[in-house]
Amino acid sequence: MRVTLIAAQSLDGFITHHDTAGSAFASEADRAFFKSALKGFDTCVMGAETYRTAREAIRTGLMPDRLRIVVTHTPSAFETDVIPEHLEFINAGAAEIVAELKRRGRTACALLGGSQIHSLFLEAGCVDELWITVEPVLFGSGTGLVAGRTDVHLELLEVQNLSAHTLLLKYKVSR
Amino acid sequence: MRVTLIAAQSLDGFITHHDTAGSAFASEADRAFFKSALKGFDTCVMGAETYRTAREAIRTGLMPDRLRIVVTHTPSAFETDVIPEHLEFINAGAAEIVAELKRRGRTACALLGGSQIHSLFLEAGCVDELWITVEPVLFGSGTGLVAGRTDVHLELLEVQNLSAHTLLLKYKVSR
Repeated sequence: MRVTLIAAQSLDGFITHHDTAGSAFASEADRAFFKSALKGFDTCVMGAETYRTAREAIRTGLMPDRLRIVVTHTPSAFETDVIPEHLEFINAGAAEIVAELKRRGRTACALLGGSQIHSLFLEAGCVDELWITVEPVLFGSGTGLVAGRTDVHLELLEVQNLSAHTLLLKYKVSR
Repeated sequence: MRVTLIAAQSLDGFITHHDTAGSAFASEADRAFFKSALKGFDTCVMGAETYRTAREAIRTGLMPDRLRIVVTHTPSAFETDVIPEHLEFINAGAAEIVAELKRRGRTACALLGGSQIHSLFLEAGCVDELWITVEPVLFGSGTGLVAGRTDVHLELLEVQNLSAHTLLLKYKVSR
């Protein structure tokens, strides 16, 4: 099971524009990349806040063969949204989630934020790669890529121009 | 007068490793690039904190034909360090500093941090380019590239590999 953190950020490392939740700041080129990239994953994992922000798009865009997992301390609050094998809500740590996905035969998981979920998986050593879109903007404030102090070493795999000014940087997490 | 902000950061936008002042986290490749890049500038501007952190290296590395300006609220505190045309201390805004440098015939200024100085110049519209070294690390905390909320739009000029895993991204500030 390969876990890939996928996010768009400002050059200075913010995944939200100031206090506005979601990644509406991301370019058309990033949205096209993201949509296409997701085809390579049989599972997406996100936090409850990310789910709430994108709920309608997620519920109307559910795909057979792609499980969406929302990590939350209160799965019961989402009981009416559950669609087994399509949209599930769980309260568990990163290693536990990865083990469960493996058990269910899943092979490629996209980690879709937010920063708390990034941290949860990074701190548990459960992220294999980061695919970071760097938008040509400075925000100076917002939600950081990672929630709180960490020390993760990366290896650059690939640099790609998604458009004239938007870059995609792919990194592997060093073990 | 061209002003270029030069900084090394973690992928997630921190110019210091957690609470450790300075850029000791930066790679050998970045240090070599930085040293070589500075040759193209006749002026360097930095904040008092950056000066204090690198004081000995700066004072022993002074060059004829390169003016170092330290921006501080208390130039008098540095009276004994002053070497006219080599190392000066001033209390002024970005536009005023740029005008003064122009008046003195300077043509290329490197802005060397920290984040407060980056903000001072960015908010005044006094930065032409950013040359950002992206080191393959996530810190999650530290001093950000920019101090506080901003909205700066950039245009990507160039991507360069300084080493296998360290990137140099050059951007122009959009007007």
